Amino acid sequence: MKHTLSLLLCCLFLNSWAQTSEEKTQIQAFFDQALTKSMAYEDLRVLCKDIGARLSGSKALEQAVVWGDTTFQDLNPDTVYKQEVLVPHWERGREQAHYYDKNGRTKLKVKTLGGSVGTGLSTLQGSVIQFNSLTDLENADPKTVEGKFVFLNQPFDETYINTFDAYGACSVNRFMGAIKAAEKGAIAIYVRSLSNHDNKHAHTGSMAYKTGLDSIPAVALSAKAANILALDLANDPTLTAYLKLQTTHYQDARSHNVIAELKGSQFPDQYITIGAHLDSWDVGEGAHDDGAGVVQTIEVLRLFKTMTIQPKHSIRFVLFTNEENGAKGAFRYAQLAELQSENHILAIESDRGGFSPRGFQIDSKNTTLIEQIRSWKPFLEQFGLHDFSEGYAGVDINPLKSVNQNITLIGLKPDSQRYFSHHHADSDVFESVNRRELELGAASMAALLYLLDKNL
Amino acid sequence: MKHTLSLLLCCLFLNSWAQTSEEKTQIQAFFDQALTKSMAYEDLRVLCKDIGARLSGSKALEQAVVWGDTTFQDLNPDTVYKQEVLVPHWERGREQAHYYDKNGRTKLKVKTLGGSVGTGLSTLQGSVIQFNSLTDLENADPKTVEGKFVFLNQPFDETYINTFDAYGACSVNRFMGAIKAAEKGAIAIYVRSLSNHDNKHAHTGSMAYKTGLDSIPAVALSAKAANILALDLANDPTLTAYLKLQTTHYQDARSHNVIAELKGSQFPDQYITIGAHLDSWDVGEGAHDDGAGVVQTIEVLRLFKTMTIQPKHSIRFVLFTNEENGAKGAFRYAQLAELQSENHILAIESDRGGFSPRGFQIDSKNTTLIEQIRSWKPFLEQFGLHDFSEGYAGVDINPLKSVNQNITLIGLKPDSQRYFSHHHADSDVFESVNRRELELGAASMAALLYLLDKNL
Repeated sequence: MKHTLSLLLCCLFLNSWAQTSEEKTQIQAFFDQALTKSMAYEDLRVLCKDIGARLSGSKALEQAVVWGDTTFQDLNPDTVYKQEVLVPHWERGREQAHYYDKNGRTKLKVKTLGGSVGTGLSTLQGSVIQFNSLTDLENADPKTVEGKFVFLNQPFDETYINTFDAYGACSVNRFMGAIKAAEKGAIAIYVRSLSNHDNKHAHTGSMAYKTGLDSIPAVALSAKAANILALDLANDPTLTAYLKLQTTHYQDARSHNVIAELKGSQFPDQYITIGAHLDSWDVGEGAHDDGAGVVQTIEVLRLFKTMTIQPKHSIRFVLFTNEENGAKGAFRYAQLAELQSENHILAIESDRGGFSPRGFQIDSKNTTLIEQIRSWKPFLEQFGLHDFSEGYAGVDINPLKSVNQNITLIGLKPDSQRYFSHHHADSDVFESVNRRELELGAASMAALLYLLDKNL
Repeated sequence: MKHTLSLLLCCLFLNSWAQTSEEKTQIQAFFDQALTKSMAYEDLRVLCKDIGARLSGSKALEQAVVWGDTTFQDLNPDTVYKQEVLVPHWERGREQAHYYDKNGRTKLKVKTLGGSVGTGLSTLQGSVIQFNSLTDLENADPKTVEGKFVFLNQPFDETYINTFDAYGACSVNRFMGAIKAAEKGAIAIYVRSLSNHDNKHAHTGSMAYKTGLDSIPAVALSAKAANILALDLANDPTLTAYLKLQTTHYQDARSHNVIAELKGSQFPDQYITIGAHLDSWDVGEGAHDDGAGVVQTIEVLRLFKTMTIQPKHSIRFVLFTNEENGAKGAFRYAQLAELQSENHILAIESDRGGFSPRGFQIDSKNTTLIEQIRSWKPFLEQFGLHDFSEGYAGVDINPLKSVNQNITLIGLKPDSQRYFSHHHADSDVFESVNRRELELGAASMAALLYLLDKNL
């Protein structure tokens, strides 16, 4: 009995060791392959330079859909298909903004917020009232706001090490600012860009209006322009602002999620989703947001196919449409999964830029699984992956909670220091992405997907 | 007795806890201050834009010495002084390189290696023989090399996660290539740049000649140019290369290490050095190498002074001269320390670029201290500091081993993915440095210095 037990323990140990060794070899191979033979950077060049910015409703986004479909097909997964999605179609036109103070005319470089109304043929004109937070605006006496431009000037809190925390702390300004300003009778709103204090770009992004309330024009100012305007306002509180914006709202357009699938060998009815979003804002080239995630998702499939890895679970590689202004692709994906009663156990997303990966952010009720993922840290840390904190995983996979409230959602977590220099701005172009950083992110996703598929 | 023991343990526990809490508060304050009120980025702008590239022997380097001295003085440490150092003085002149093959003329963008001889008034002309490693060159039959250009074309091994390992694996090519090629009778040498395979810049750097052997001209080719030359050589092994270089060797020049000192309150005779090198190559602006380290060193002093931190040990903030082509400043600093029988217990260096810090590389025989530093990881990891591996700490502090063979040397370890895109190349300019990444490095150095000073 004693010997039998020893033998059993020994076998278990050897088996466990053997599996770990195989896993280590495979993960090293992912990184070696990604850093020497990856196509991710060339894919990104095509997506950024040949296709470019690709807002929902644009021809470019549907070119990206065709490109994603073809690129997936070329990798010969078990199936490739598209899911039709209706998406908003809004277009930016001319943007003219300036103000006059005691010293004369100052031109403002602005970016209209996505979905904003324009000013029609007229030019809006008014004085400017500044608020340092949405709460200050909410608490303001309407008489001080009526007929004016609201200038919402809350700076990024630079003390957050993770810049997404700084973004989270003031992103409500961009989304809700036009509603709160209109409630007080403002005629337009300037929102300080959600970026670092020394950034020169105006950063666009999504915003909301409220039914039954005036929709007022909303633009982002660069942080630098906001700093200057604040100084000028302090010197001359009566300065006069002028704004002329052209925007067009069209009927919803047809777009598509693009999906490639590898069928699971042991649990074909259990789904793991890995993905990113294909659409971008209509500025820059959507390189970090989220071209990087798209080409990393494609690269993970390429790694699995090149290395003939047959997953145990069915894996869906998903290029979501319309993350930026509606997340209709994400909701449609979850809705169809629910309608088809699919069993979704896990999803991984890359939507934080193509920077050096540092780990993953995990959103899960499964504490045992979280501990298991953290148990891989001593091995994964040599690849720079050291951060396995809990938190929000990503916009495109989050709706899967409606399919399975116990699903584990994971977001790739790259170094965040440079992200908000480029996010939703003209500078989010191919040249701002470093090849090796992008490739390390792809290998990190492949490694995590491989480990989870093997161990779930 | 029992109560006395409990009380004693309780007091010890409280005392230990109190200290840790104080340390945590102070470290958080370093990061908060560095990310909101740092002057490091503006200092770097001055060093890069007003002074620029600053090779040993140049007027710019001595301008940087004056600037460093003044900047230190303004921070009002206990003392500021300079150490005179004789440094090499070599200047690059015109660089003309091309080759003719079956398809015509191809221009080569080259950078002369630092200290290389020129070609005089003549143009060197010859066929080209390629080697993929220094060992292959060493094993070559001299008859195949005589009268030719040697083309040393060993690529970076991209599979290393830490790019300094890839650099280490082929840096001997640049340093020893001209000697090994001359030993075989070559007339000149092309060395593939120590950079990633897709980099378009030629990267200069230090090289050696051997007394009694011909000194042959040596240039770096960009990795991209090397890839093209290798293809053209495969198509036409008889292609003819042409090289015309002007270089000038002057007499050694006077330069200076610049030193600021804070006197220790408890152990004034025990020295901790923290520093970086003031000189740079004569290309780009020496932004990452090592302007970043210089302004971080200055920022650490600024943080200590602003927060009125009185160190227990004497701290020397040192801007070393001539790291790039001789390390004469580093040797002089160690020599003077030895002559004055100083007790140097620790040194910290930043010379791996102004990128997001990931940790420190420790070179120490003191395993207890290494374990102590690693015990801080659970707290420091929230600032991105997770890597406390052992290894080489830095060129400028390494000679201190001759002063105290048991000294602990530590190098700041930033993310390495982008370093060799810019190292010793035209692209190492201010714009390639991100403000927040730079500031996080300064705060990381301040945190480690503070913890070590308190705990040693």
